[in-house]
Amino acid sequence: MQRLIVDMDGVLADIYAQYLNFEESESGVRRSLESLYSQSESQIFKNIDTYLHTKGFFGNAPVIQGSQDALSKLNDLYEVFIVSSATEFPHSFNEKYDWLTQHFPFITWKQMVFCGSKSIVQGDIMIDDHFKNLDIFRGRTLLFTQPHNYGLPEKGHTRVSSWEEILELLL
Amino acid sequence: MQRLIVDMDGVLADIYAQYLNFEESESGVRRSLESLYSQSESQIFKNIDTYLHTKGFFGNAPVIQGSQDALSKLNDLYEVFIVSSATEFPHSFNEKYDWLTQHFPFITWKQMVFCGSKSIVQGDIMIDDHFKNLDIFRGRTLLFTQPHNYGLPEKGHTRVSSWEEILELLL
Repeated sequence: MQRLIVDMDGVLADIYAQYLNFEESESGVRRSLESLYSQSESQIFKNIDTYLHTKGFFGNAPVIQGSQDALSKLNDLYEVFIVSSATEFPHSFNEKYDWLTQHFPFITWKQMVFCGSKSIVQGDIMIDDHFKNLDIFRGRTLLFTQPHNYGLPEKGHTRVSSWEEILELLL
Repeated sequence: MQRLIVDMDGVLADIYAQYLNFEESESGVRRSLESLYSQSESQIFKNIDTYLHTKGFFGNAPVIQGSQDALSKLNDLYEVFIVSSATEFPHSFNEKYDWLTQHFPFITWKQMVFCGSKSIVQGDIMIDDHFKNLDIFRGRTLLFTQPHNYGLPEKGHTRVSSWEEILELLL
């Protein structure tokens, strides 16, 4: 059984919705996703550090469309691990654990990894929205489209823009 | 730089001291470590599940002798990761993070991994007290002596009984 490593923020959890929610509650203005294309999250959101350290930021993130059904199917065919950068934000541990348990109840504690650097994990396939994680992975790499990587060269990774596309590739 | 993967419970944190503390507070009797040799923790401690799920069990564990100085030295020579089984006990995330930050301040969040199965991590050397983790690791393996593995055949792993012995091997 091949091991499939799935990122959480930006692949399962809709982090941009949260950025925009938090920004709107500060400024009263909601920017469009299109206006954020191809720039890093820290370039775009001036107060991102505050958002990321706020209770509820991770816990209340919406689920990315199609991810629940798709991951449920893939969980039967692959050895799935959810690998999330979390140790930079210690308050996020329990929010992320509870969020996964609530929205992806078929994912057990044995399949969860909360780390700082993803250089430590090994597997056959990785789905992630960040080049820094995919570039150091020795295996097949799927780049999940998010505003920060929109339109950028894929650098050898396979771009996917929805969970339907992921299923087409991996089922 | 070689990657050194270090277990937390039973290698840095003196978990047996906590088992015995918790048992003694229940029964009034403190057993000797010698009386626990070569039997699994769950065989020995009837109420182990309660202990492990109690707040403070991980956070108040004593530090294993010599581990702070030794790991500080090794941290300059190796790419050290602390990999701890934690997702089975979600209340332990922050206790473990705080404990590491307090007792091993030179270990940054980038070097911490909280997981369920250690099959996911890759590196050159692993120090662990459990065969289940060492047996599936592709690299050099050091078996840290704890009562549960005392006297058992090493199965190809190198037994170490103190951090001084680890330094002799790895410096």
